[in-house]
Amino acid sequence: MSQERFVTSITRQSEDFSAWYTDVVRKAELADYSPVRGCMVIRPYGYALWEHTRDALDGMIKETGHSNVYFPLFIPKSLLDKEAEHVEGFNPQVAWVTHAGGKELDEPLAVRPTSEAIIAATVRDWIHSYRDLPLLMNLWNNVVRWEMRTRLFLRTTEFLWQEGHTFHATEQEALEETDRMLDVYRRLCDEWLAIPVTSGRKTESEKFPGAVTTLAIEAMMRDRRALQSGTSHHLGQNFTRAEGIEFLDRDNLRKNPWGTSWGLSTRIVGATIMAHGDDDGLVLPPRVAPYQVVVVPIWRREEDRVAVAGAVETVLAALRSTPDGRAVRVHVDWRDDVSPGFKYSHWELRGVPLRIEIGPRDVAAGQAVVVRRVDRVKEAAPLAALPAEIPARLERYQADLFERAARFRAANTHAADDYDTFRRVIEEEGGFVMAHWCGAAACEKRINEETGATIRVIPFDAPADPGRCLIDGGAATDRVLFARAY
Amino acid sequence: MSQERFVTSITRQSEDFSAWYTDVVRKAELADYSPVRGCMVIRPYGYALWEHTRDALDGMIKETGHSNVYFPLFIPKSLLDKEAEHVEGFNPQVAWVTHAGGKELDEPLAVRPTSEAIIAATVRDWIHSYRDLPLLMNLWNNVVRWEMRTRLFLRTTEFLWQEGHTFHATEQEALEETDRMLDVYRRLCDEWLAIPVTSGRKTESEKFPGAVTTLAIEAMMRDRRALQSGTSHHLGQNFTRAEGIEFLDRDNLRKNPWGTSWGLSTRIVGATIMAHGDDDGLVLPPRVAPYQVVVVPIWRREEDRVAVAGAVETVLAALRSTPDGRAVRVHVDWRDDVSPGFKYSHWELRGVPLRIEIGPRDVAAGQAVVVRRVDRVKEAAPLAALPAEIPARLERYQADLFERAARFRAANTHAADDYDTFRRVIEEEGGFVMAHWCGAAACEKRINEETGATIRVIPFDAPADPGRCLIDGGAATDRVLFARAY
Repeated sequence: MSQERFVTSITRQSEDFSAWYTDVVRKAELADYSPVRGCMVIRPYGYALWEHTRDALDGMIKETGHSNVYFPLFIPKSLLDKEAEHVEGFNPQVAWVTHAGGKELDEPLAVRPTSEAIIAATVRDWIHSYRDLPLLMNLWNNVVRWEMRTRLFLRTTEFLWQEGHTFHATEQEALEETDRMLDVYRRLCDEWLAIPVTSGRKTESEKFPGAVTTLAIEAMMRDRRALQSGTSHHLGQNFTRAEGIEFLDRDNLRKNPWGTSWGLSTRIVGATIMAHGDDDGLVLPPRVAPYQVVVVPIWRREEDRVAVAGAVETVLAALRSTPDGRAVRVHVDWRDDVSPGFKYSHWELRGVPLRIEIGPRDVAAGQAVVVRRVDRVKEAAPLAALPAEIPARLERYQADLFERAARFRAANTHAADDYDTFRRVIEEEGGFVMAHWCGAAACEKRINEETGATIRVIPFDAPADPGRCLIDGGAATDRVLFARAY
Repeated sequence: MSQERFVTSITRQSEDFSAWYTDVVRKAELADYSPVRGCMVIRPYGYALWEHTRDALDGMIKETGHSNVYFPLFIPKSLLDKEAEHVEGFNPQVAWVTHAGGKELDEPLAVRPTSEAIIAATVRDWIHSYRDLPLLMNLWNNVVRWEMRTRLFLRTTEFLWQEGHTFHATEQEALEETDRMLDVYRRLCDEWLAIPVTSGRKTESEKFPGAVTTLAIEAMMRDRRALQSGTSHHLGQNFTRAEGIEFLDRDNLRKNPWGTSWGLSTRIVGATIMAHGDDDGLVLPPRVAPYQVVVVPIWRREEDRVAVAGAVETVLAALRSTPDGRAVRVHVDWRDDVSPGFKYSHWELRGVPLRIEIGPRDVAAGQAVVVRRVDRVKEAAPLAALPAEIPARLERYQADLFERAARFRAANTHAADDYDTFRRVIEEEGGFVMAHWCGAAACEKRINEETGATIRVIPFDAPADPGRCLIDGGAATDRVLFARAY
């Protein structure tokens, strides 16, 4: 029975980006809806993509001195209620366990939307002296936030993430940590996901409930919208004061430690999909792709199959342990009930960076054909050279993908000096718009209500460029980044 | 300020095993109680131990062809209710979310106690033909079972685990999978945790709610009690029939697939602690120990410190990249406010397999002193030889730990041919008792009620050894394993 009838067609990106996204996620078998409202099932291919991303980030979190730990899924209501802004921000989204073990509970338990509250309540017993600081922790877990409108990976009721939580003896150290971890997120996006991001500070209205300041990285998707891809919060003494955490400092004074928290979630998988994908499906960065190379053997007669299999096995063994010790993640598609053409589409949809085609004539000529997913560039390469060449080609591909995304972002970043121009760009062209803002919440709010754009970040590296606020003409020293966002 | 006042004393194992266990877990900073009833906080040292165990198991699960996936935390009540035995077994332990997003839910959501029900409901859409089988999945997640009496790692309301779920076209394949994964657990215990286990089948009264048969591995703790360390279930068609999952087989008949599930949890950390620990604290198997080696530099004068530091740095660099490419996990304890003796106790409590002491006289002699945690055997070794020797010593240590546990188990496994002897052994000596049982639930129940012992498993490899049931004298072909258990 042929499976050709399952050849998938996906909505074109240019036609309906949102439908394209859902098609890709479901048809490339990354994830699917589940029987639970707003929750998703992450399928093997999607989970492998998440695992590679997670492992890269986990390595960087450990390198910067943090230890992984685990805290409970549940937070008693009285604990969540301690920090006023925090509870106000999260309460509307909380799921509550009210019954367990056949009885009604004395106190409802929140399913954690984030763990600041329970961590603050726990570390009170661990922090006594400046010698106990800094306390640098990270958690990989699941959290629940009751969302009205959900989208696979981008916004789901339950999601997987890491949340870092640190405590410091000085405010300066906490501020440095907030910066350091934002930069770890930037590096993850740059070096692993091939996504250029803009780093900066959130405005008061966009910051984390309970934070003093929130930093974020913002990426541009291929529909030119912004996606917040990771946040890092300076919590000041907000939670430690609410919990009464104190330490005896070198100067013999009792103080509340300064805290930070920072998180990056499965949402980043959505960013990877939308930053690189095209009309044929996913375009994955090699460093996190579940398969970096797919081999499609081509044969008709049994004797050809045997010859091709010999060549494939040789290439395979070499790729799985390359001269420099880096294993390439390779899959060979030996299915005999679908055509090579079907297989090409199958793996293009799944975004595998390089395809190696090997047929009997290739074997005879001692070569294979290597095709790049992103631009379909096709080249013959000697079989014997593949083990050394493929890792280099993957690195080049990774760099090309980043360059392509950076060019796209540059081409779709505009400056606007008056509100009419601003509205026209946001509404007609989309993308990032750099414009002046006086700092008043009222101006920010009006722009959002009238255009749907928000201030994504006040960028760190914006050049001095004084001007007048789009709305009230108030003075501004440099431009902030506006965009419509996910 | 000296930290010597924090020198920890723990209850002696022989005095009160249970108090010893809690002392070790808390004072070695593996885990602690949390503000949430029955839930624990896993601290950095405990989480690192879990990570090494988890990564080893994850590798074996992938090698045997399984893919990691994720399914939702919540299970709608109607789904959990579909398989009768399953719901009856788990309902008393379920925690229910009844309110979320500021409203009462139309249908309560169970916080997953295990995921058979939601997985069966989801894969119905994925399985159509025998070509879609086998479906081999694994999940790393958290589950909640409302427990009355909890103990850190051993029995907590929330715990971390992996749950494997597979679907097969034939019963034979499902049975083979059930065996294969039990054997993966046995290998994890043997090769990584240095714990010898007994593999076998559970009796009807001890099997998983919803399973046709449950297999388990049982380990002996140092108080001679048994600890069930992993289970593998043949689910038959119980869940697939309840969910109406069907596939079209090669013979053109529509059938329900056969299922398996298998799980291993953070409980295994408790097993590692209790299988090897002694009066001074943890004794960790090198392959999963957070630190395999601790270096304690010894100095009084600054010039000595400099000389010692030079030697330590050389050893450290070599150990972190040994000739055969295996990095040793080393920690150097440079604290200057506690004595070497304090450090010895500190790391003995934490079970680090090897301690390297280096003082100025050692440096002058070009040597270091290496001390084994388990038996305190102390040996001088040339500094230059350490990089090559330490990995070999760690391997020998790992093997010694397994041998020691195997000898302990052998010395504490008894045969009993009549009920009086059986009761005396269980009550006075403890350990495993091999005895005859006719297979009747009534006999099993009476033994349990009168002695506290349960049938841990009907071992796979028991030699034919016919005899008469301890209780009713009924015929039995071989012996089963009785013990008091955690």
